[in-house]
Amino acid sequence: MGIGKSIPRIDALEKATGRALYTDDFQMPGALVAKCVRSTIAHGRVKSIDIQSAQALAGVVSTFTYEDVPSIPFATAGHPLNLDPAHEDVADRLILTRNIRFYGDEIAVVVAESEKIAQEALELVRVEYEGYEPLMTPERILAPGAREIHKGSGNMAGESAFQCGGDVPKALLDSDFLLKADYQTRMVQHCQLENHSVLAHMKDGNRITLVTATQIPQIVRRIVGKALSLPWHQVRVIKPHVGGGFGNRQDVVLEPLAAFLTLKLGGRPVRIALNREESFGCTRARHPFHIHMTTGVKQDGTLTANQINAVSITGGYASHGHGVAAAGSAKACSLYPRGAIDYKGRTLYANMPVAGAMRAYGAPQTLYAIECNMEDAAREIGMDSVRFRLKNVAVEGDVNPLTKKPLLSCGIKACLTKGREWIGWDEKKRHYADWKQGPIRKGLGVACFTFGSGTYPVCVEIAGVRLVLNPDGFISLQAGAVEIGQGSDTVAVQMVSETVGVPCSRIQLASTHDTDFLPFDTGAYASRQSYVLSNALLKASQEFKTKILKYASMITNISEANLDIKDGIVVHAGEMSPGVISLEDLARNAYYHKEQGGQITTDVSHKTTTNAPCFGCTFVDVTVDIPLCRVHINDIINVHDSGVILNPVTAQGQVQGGMAMGIGAALYEELRVDRKTGYVYNNSFSDYKMPTALDVPHMGCEFVETFEPTSGYGNKALGEPPVISPPPAIRNAILDATGVAINELPLTPQTLFRHFRRAGLV
Amino acid sequence: MGIGKSIPRIDALEKATGRALYTDDFQMPGALVAKCVRSTIAHGRVKSIDIQSAQALAGVVSTFTYEDVPSIPFATAGHPLNLDPAHEDVADRLILTRNIRFYGDEIAVVVAESEKIAQEALELVRVEYEGYEPLMTPERILAPGAREIHKGSGNMAGESAFQCGGDVPKALLDSDFLLKADYQTRMVQHCQLENHSVLAHMKDGNRITLVTATQIPQIVRRIVGKALSLPWHQVRVIKPHVGGGFGNRQDVVLEPLAAFLTLKLGGRPVRIALNREESFGCTRARHPFHIHMTTGVKQDGTLTANQINAVSITGGYASHGHGVAAAGSAKACSLYPRGAIDYKGRTLYANMPVAGAMRAYGAPQTLYAIECNMEDAAREIGMDSVRFRLKNVAVEGDVNPLTKKPLLSCGIKACLTKGREWIGWDEKKRHYADWKQGPIRKGLGVACFTFGSGTYPVCVEIAGVRLVLNPDGFISLQAGAVEIGQGSDTVAVQMVSETVGVPCSRIQLASTHDTDFLPFDTGAYASRQSYVLSNALLKASQEFKTKILKYASMITNISEANLDIKDGIVVHAGEMSPGVISLEDLARNAYYHKEQGGQITTDVSHKTTTNAPCFGCTFVDVTVDIPLCRVHINDIINVHDSGVILNPVTAQGQVQGGMAMGIGAALYEELRVDRKTGYVYNNSFSDYKMPTALDVPHMGCEFVETFEPTSGYGNKALGEPPVISPPPAIRNAILDATGVAINELPLTPQTLFRHFRRAGLV
Repeated sequence: MGIGKSIPRIDALEKATGRALYTDDFQMPGALVAKCVRSTIAHGRVKSIDIQSAQALAGVVSTFTYEDVPSIPFATAGHPLNLDPAHEDVADRLILTRNIRFYGDEIAVVVAESEKIAQEALELVRVEYEGYEPLMTPERILAPGAREIHKGSGNMAGESAFQCGGDVPKALLDSDFLLKADYQTRMVQHCQLENHSVLAHMKDGNRITLVTATQIPQIVRRIVGKALSLPWHQVRVIKPHVGGGFGNRQDVVLEPLAAFLTLKLGGRPVRIALNREESFGCTRARHPFHIHMTTGVKQDGTLTANQINAVSITGGYASHGHGVAAAGSAKACSLYPRGAIDYKGRTLYANMPVAGAMRAYGAPQTLYAIECNMEDAAREIGMDSVRFRLKNVAVEGDVNPLTKKPLLSCGIKACLTKGREWIGWDEKKRHYADWKQGPIRKGLGVACFTFGSGTYPVCVEIAGVRLVLNPDGFISLQAGAVEIGQGSDTVAVQMVSETVGVPCSRIQLASTHDTDFLPFDTGAYASRQSYVLSNALLKASQEFKTKILKYASMITNISEANLDIKDGIVVHAGEMSPGVISLEDLARNAYYHKEQGGQITTDVSHKTTTNAPCFGCTFVDVTVDIPLCRVHINDIINVHDSGVILNPVTAQGQVQGGMAMGIGAALYEELRVDRKTGYVYNNSFSDYKMPTALDVPHMGCEFVETFEPTSGYGNKALGEPPVISPPPAIRNAILDATGVAINELPLTPQTLFRHFRRAGLV
Repeated sequence: MGIGKSIPRIDALEKATGRALYTDDFQMPGALVAKCVRSTIAHGRVKSIDIQSAQALAGVVSTFTYEDVPSIPFATAGHPLNLDPAHEDVADRLILTRNIRFYGDEIAVVVAESEKIAQEALELVRVEYEGYEPLMTPERILAPGAREIHKGSGNMAGESAFQCGGDVPKALLDSDFLLKADYQTRMVQHCQLENHSVLAHMKDGNRITLVTATQIPQIVRRIVGKALSLPWHQVRVIKPHVGGGFGNRQDVVLEPLAAFLTLKLGGRPVRIALNREESFGCTRARHPFHIHMTTGVKQDGTLTANQINAVSITGGYASHGHGVAAAGSAKACSLYPRGAIDYKGRTLYANMPVAGAMRAYGAPQTLYAIECNMEDAAREIGMDSVRFRLKNVAVEGDVNPLTKKPLLSCGIKACLTKGREWIGWDEKKRHYADWKQGPIRKGLGVACFTFGSGTYPVCVEIAGVRLVLNPDGFISLQAGAVEIGQGSDTVAVQMVSETVGVPCSRIQLASTHDTDFLPFDTGAYASRQSYVLSNALLKASQEFKTKILKYASMITNISEANLDIKDGIVVHAGEMSPGVISLEDLARNAYYHKEQGGQITTDVSHKTTTNAPCFGCTFVDVTVDIPLCRVHINDIINVHDSGVILNPVTAQGQVQGGMAMGIGAALYEELRVDRKTGYVYNNSFSDYKMPTALDVPHMGCEFVETFEPTSGYGNKALGEPPVISPPPAIRNAILDATGVAINELPLTPQTLFRHFRRAGLV
């Protein structure tokens, strides 16, 4: 009774009234404040550090440098443990470092009684460096004799390759046309509103409690445990409401240091809260990619082959390492499964801010190249862009050449058709033919995407759910799933409602995650949450309902088979009223009958061994002002096949939020790093241009509902994908309007000016 | 491997280092402070209240009076819901009241930004009363025409009667001797160190969170729900560490008001913290009893009958009502099951502080009368006090004449024998024969007790346990049991250790109770916790071990029957080393194998439908200084049959703590209420004389270990009983030393002087 309804987010009230607790709302008496001494060069080594004057300042409790931390290298990437050692993340971090890999690297820390004192102390620290040339471009990074940013790495954080779907050299030879180009995407920032902040204390026995806005509470335990050489259960993680994740919180950035500090300070509460500048430059960003791509097509529009050669830049530390490039590239096989595909990818260290997971994890970069290259191919053979894609995109039954898994649900063709109609493609195509000259031009663009629902088979996919019938007949839902604003708690309630037969309003879910209590789930990433959760919730809800009906049968002497739950009341199966017993009366009996019953609960841990791709596309209608080099979006829509839509309004929210982020990456955003010092110029919201409500156009959002049979409720990934296709669609629309193919991002007036001048337009 | 070992309390480290969090350590930014306007008369009605000046004070956020609260009467007693309406607690409270029943009754409340402002505001409130005569003695309370303290009550909060074990009038006629006397016990206070304090807020959606040091988190939900007409799940209760309960926290005293305030104030955090004076006079106390008792004996020492007529005073509100008197009186049937027993009891309202649950719940009062009366009987027939008891106390196989249940374990005879030997009874008896004259006299005393292990069949006995295998192989134990300092968490860990086969150090239990997460258990009272828990833990541990072995079998291909867990390692059954797989490796596989496994958990809710009596006795050796009317305890011992002793050191701690409390009630303590105003004179630790470390003698403690077959680990009640028998034993020793039978408490110099003068000794 809950699926498909636009019930309000279950945390709407507390968020709208300002009551919702975020990390900084957790205050403890006597909590200390820690601040990091950060490097002011991008590449080098600390020759000496003078922290005595800081330590001597009244109100400074303690200081620690790279000399005081454990020599245990650890990885910060928020991946579940992989039993295959080959899949271990690169352990290239220490809690504090003497070797500087990027501007802002953590060298030392001061702990003081107040923020103000900590800041004053920071200014008293003197650091002497031995500086090296910052390495920021693939050429420099890979130049023979280039200094290794991490010893023994050859400046490579990882590489991979695959071929599938046929013999690529042969397929390219057989093609009528070959399209080759180089594409570049830039480093952008998540810009989640809430800065990174952690409160650490040891009030719970000998254990460390971390209050932190993370996407991966359980993984934080493991990584902190590793960094400090503690058993994982010694680390308790509490995740309050989260002011945006987008992948920036799928890295364990501050937690090991915070845990180290409280451990060193006898368990005293310590808070580390980054300011906005630190959040911009010293957390994680999106990997910039350099992609050389070749597409082969036949005259009739058949795609024959894609050859992709990608270089990804991870910055000073590996973080998610080569995983982002590898994951992104695999998308080609899902979206266009009938061509031959050849992929080579490398991920390089650079003396730049660290890149990590960011919404859609490599897909925006790779699919930018693919969807630009496909557009160029369609134009080359003179075929309509939509028709070209309709001819080549995946259909149900296609087998992914890389994973060898058949597609069980696929609505991309219907998405293209729906989007084409919505934007008025054919009519506008005709109309805009008159707008290809002069200072104001108009054009249409389209781009497709696909994305997985989780990480299987690369990582384990596990979700845990506990359901409890409360004494008042309400149901408590405890899910290990991590709500970070994406709405997973709300759809979880809807799923339970659907299967148990109880109104959503009678299901209560605590939004604060606590690893001490909640069932195990690896976290919110890879658009996995509602997909992986669906099977666990279905199983748990069915089991729970059975237990309730069994108890009802016992106290009413009506056979279980003849009972059902409707609208929160146990009824005769197939009937509605008057009902046999309310859940409240049943619960009361189960709890308080002196000889029978007990608390009715269900505790399910479920592994998902499937990974359903979702699909979709962006259509965009733009006006380009040639003299001003400006793009105006007249209309834009994303059409998604995410299987069954669990909650249309929150789904729409996800899509529109992602589209805005995609428009930002397309038109405005780039984290600008000084090539000499490694300093991030635009490390504030005044300088970093992300689109505001005034900048984004009305964003259309439509769904093509398929039913994904591997999912408990037919649903597939939705959280990340909306960000993927707007940039190539906008680039393709500009190409349509102006005839200029721009193969880089962002499409700012400055970028357009360069390309328009080269094309002779300005 | 854990049972019977004196492992350190699992919360020892955090308590010893001061890290442990108590209610007042939970601070929230912007929390308001509430203080109650309390009546300054004991009986009457508020004619008018002027709270305007308080409201007008800067920093006062709000004020509320009896006019602003819901008109929903509720009961404060912390009993589980009883499905039999006849067992419902008396609902005689409102959140704030216009009708005054005791000095300190809550009339209004001021809420301010700080403690200081709230206190200032309080002093600006003007109340006009219509005052009535305070009713404090049974004669006045029951006098014809006496004003009803609660309308329609006839000033009776409850009454009950039973006869069992034979025809009492006939048995009395058949006796050779009849001993009749009146006994009086006084109102004493729990004196738990931590005052009552509650923090209420609504940060979790539309729900109310209460942080409170309660013994009954789940029952708080129900009572607050009732008082505010909210579904129970809307109330979340968090119980941090508790600075002593003793029954004072088995009442829901502050929580409804705190919940009301945050609800009225838009969810803002509000704290109500009582000061010591309020804790003494306005929380709960022990019911004073007036007991008329007759014992019939034959010349050979055979006990024929006990006739008990008890009047209990509950003060201004019913609280636990007549339950205390009824529970206390039933103890006679368990301790001396072969005589006929006739009981009548009444519980009266009075304009005195409210009495509620207090350690041993009526048994100290009733058994004081019984054990004094038995002593007098033994002396009357010239039989040794120990021999007389050995002849009459219960033995295994005896059937309780009231409950009709056979005794499955009973070590009271062995306790008497062990105590007699420990104190050197026979030798001292001979020696002290020379000390019955002159100013310094010496004597020996003995008294027995019995107590139940829970409340069954009066109330439901339910315990819940969840066990989780952590990814690092450690076990998390989540028990609904409520740790209030008694050590139940520690023995719970020992039980799991015993059955699963894992060292206690590898079992982790979170001490903070949270009703949102922990399995259901009604709380810490009735010495039920480790008994009721034992069966739930045994069941859960067995199930959990089976699940682990099943998984081990799957991944090792060794049959389950050939596997066992020893010292935290899965081994070949019957062998120890080298072991098949560590729990750490097994857990890692279960969590992270991509196709099989999952989080291994067990979730058990168990009802106990037995109630095993425990037994024991006190032996005491005293010197009485006749001129100074002072008693000096030379030696004292409690010997307990509590079944299997789970942890000898913590068990000894419980016994010695209880003995100190018993010595306090015997020699020092009385809550002194002004007969005209109802004001408690000695409402501070300077005026209320509880024994300090300097006042208590060395306290012996021995156990007679029986095995109680209805218990998961053979254990029985231990928490409350140590307090019961020291007072009658000391009274009996004074009688032995001086020949003066004093039938009241406390045995202060003032009391002794009155009696000694009457006896012509001074």
